[in-house]
Amino acid sequence: MPSARVVDVSESQRQPIHPSEASVLGLGAMGSALAAALLDAGRSVTVWNRTPGRATRLVAHGADAVGSVREAVLASPVVIACLLDHASVEETLGPVAEDLRGRTLVNVTTTTPGEARELASWAAVHGIDYLDGAIMAVPSMIGAHTGQVLYSGSRAAYETLLPMLEVWATSEFFGEDAGRASVVDLAMLSGMYQMFAGFFHGAAMAATMGMSAAEFTARQTPFLAAMTEELADYAKVIDGGDYTVPGQQSLDFSDLSHLVRASEEEGVDPSPIAMVQELISRQVAAGHGSEGFARVYESLRADR
Amino acid sequence: MPSARVVDVSESQRQPIHPSEASVLGLGAMGSALAAALLDAGRSVTVWNRTPGRATRLVAHGADAVGSVREAVLASPVVIACLLDHASVEETLGPVAEDLRGRTLVNVTTTTPGEARELASWAAVHGIDYLDGAIMAVPSMIGAHTGQVLYSGSRAAYETLLPMLEVWATSEFFGEDAGRASVVDLAMLSGMYQMFAGFFHGAAMAATMGMSAAEFTARQTPFLAAMTEELADYAKVIDGGDYTVPGQQSLDFSDLSHLVRASEEEGVDPSPIAMVQELISRQVAAGHGSEGFARVYESLRADR
Ligand SMILES: NC(=O)c1ccc[n+]([C@@H]2O[C@H](COP(=O)([O-])OP(=O)(O)OC[C@H]3O[C@@H](n4cnc5c(N)ncnc54)[C@H](OP(=O)(O)O)[C@@H]3O)[C@@H](O)[C@H]2O)c1
Ligand SMILES: NC(=O)c1ccc[n+]([C@@H]2O[C@H](COP(=O)([O-])OP(=O)(O)OC[C@H]3O[C@@H](n4cnc5c(N)ncnc54)[C@H](OP(=O)(O)O)[C@@H]3O)[C@@H](O)[C@H]2O)c1
Repeated sequence: MPSARVVDVSESQRQPIHPSEASVLGLGAMGSALAAALLDAGRSVTVWNRTPGRATRLVAHGADAVGSVREAVLASPVVIACLLDHASVEETLGPVAEDLRGRTLVNVTTTTPGEARELASWAAVHGIDYLDGAIMAVPSMIGAHTGQVLYSGSRAAYETLLPMLEVWATSEFFGEDAGRASVVDLAMLSGMYQMFAGFFHGAAMAATMGMSAAEFTARQTPFLAAMTEELADYAKVIDGGDYTVPGQQSLDFSDLSHLVRASEEEGVDPSPIAMVQELISRQVAAGHGSEGFARVYESLRADR
Repeated sequence: MPSARVVDVSESQRQPIHPSEASVLGLGAMGSALAAALLDAGRSVTVWNRTPGRATRLVAHGADAVGSVREAVLASPVVIACLLDHASVEETLGPVAEDLRGRTLVNVTTTTPGEARELASWAAVHGIDYLDGAIMAVPSMIGAHTGQVLYSGSRAAYETLLPMLEVWATSEFFGEDAGRASVVDLAMLSGMYQMFAGFFHGAAMAATMGMSAAEFTARQTPFLAAMTEELADYAKVIDGGDYTVPGQQSLDFSDLSHLVRASEEEGVDPSPIAMVQELISRQVAAGHGSEGFARVYESLRADR
């Protein structure tokens, strides 16, 4: 049985020379920040990176750098993966599945909810306690408590590791379905990136009359910040499920075809605003023109 | 010359029974609010609406209601048009062009910049002083000074009328090109509607894990408000014209394909976020992946 030989490691190989509390796989901008914050908090940390040479500063701060994923896994009861994407996590952890058995895997690599669930299933098969994390912070915020990390998956792992996780940022647990942290993270980012796209489109429109982006921004920033206050009203209508409640701006009134036309007239790519108009039109075409603007939500939501 | 007969009105027809300071054409939600604010400020106002019966409350407040556009035009040196759209303005004012000669036309109907310029040209031909207005307010804000009205076109008209215009809202003049107020207005609204679409998409994502729109909003609102602070940095890069300045999040790093994929996986229409990804991809495909996210602007801007 050649496969047995692969997983059958001797006891001496299972005992690392320097056991540590946590091992960090991936020393990119974020992985390095996570490892550094743990060291700053007095934790013992083993680190590994695919390309050698990225651990120098961490080693100077007390980290133990190892040359293989397997050594890193064997060094600690808690393994933190902060790699590029789901594919790199699969590639890195696939060969060490049996080494991970009985340990806790905290995967803070950005993935889709489906990928997180896939990894959770794989971990369950191999007896690995799996916690998925979604980082809502940039590296400079790690340890400064201005960011947030969302978690889902093993509740036991979350509760046990909380003192360590709180070293990085405010932590929040969303439930045992490992995909949930990613859903919330991506939902939040979706709004942000679309706001940015809207801003770029507006700035491109303003530029056609010679207004600088800075001048446009001085108007747009407080306006958008004020308009975020409207979201709560939309949410109330969405949760209520009745788009005919009075006091709403109607879909008919929200027709943006003049905005699409203006963008075309000025030579600015109308696709961002045309997309919104398309979502509105879909509801109007379905006969809901007199209902509230929040009905755009119905153009997007999953059938459930 | 039959056409001469049409424009040759007798002196008696030109003298209205109740001359007023301003005539408001269009008594929808906004036109009524504009007329009411002028009356509240002690101005004499003549009003007209296509469908009769909408002037009752204004008449009770002292307005003079007339049955034809022509009577309304002849009653005042200043004619305010607040109709549905550009087509309704053309339809309403076309037949009274010669009656408008020598008067000031303030058109606060929402139009494209191109339509505003078209109307300004038409006004110039007929000796009408033209001021275009873009209202950044809802009717309840008119007279309460929480809104803003942007103007462009005749500077003389703007300066003369300012005391009256300030009755409605804070006023700002953007120059003699009549299209400019509309450009700024639409640029501002474009950002807002895209932020709303992003919010609806995020809420639809969050709903797939059973999070209510209200719960999502409680997170999204402060997050988006905080993220509006990023816009000034993007503006600096755009105005600087160099997307390689250090310290920026790169386009490669901003790849949103996992977000598009997650949306598809969860059954939520990915089109809003796919649109942003498309703008990013266009720049990456052109070889700018290592440059800053603000380069998305280049996917949209008019060639100039
Ligand atoms: N930076 C942020 O602001 C931020 C914010 C939230 C979430 N995140 C998430 O955190 C994760 C890491 O981000 P980062 O900023 O640290 O990225 P990064 O600086 O680009 O680092 C990527 C890391 O992944 C490793 N890697 C890539 N492909 C690999 C593979 N096939 N096998 C093994 N290792 C591989 C790289 O190793 P090499 O050195 O060998 O290339 C490097 O350590 C990502 O999922 C990111 O979305 C980052
Ligand atoms: N309400 C707002 O929050 C708001 C904010 C900013 C800008 N605006 C702009 O202000 C303008 C008016 O808005 P509103 O809220 O007052 O709209 P509204 O309540 O729907 O009223 C539309 C008005 O236009 C008239 N009209 C429509 N088609 C016409 C035609 N072919 N000929 C003559 N009159 C016609 C209507 O007369 P009938 O009564 O005969 O139909 C009515 O007086 C629009 O351009 C809108 O974009 C409104």
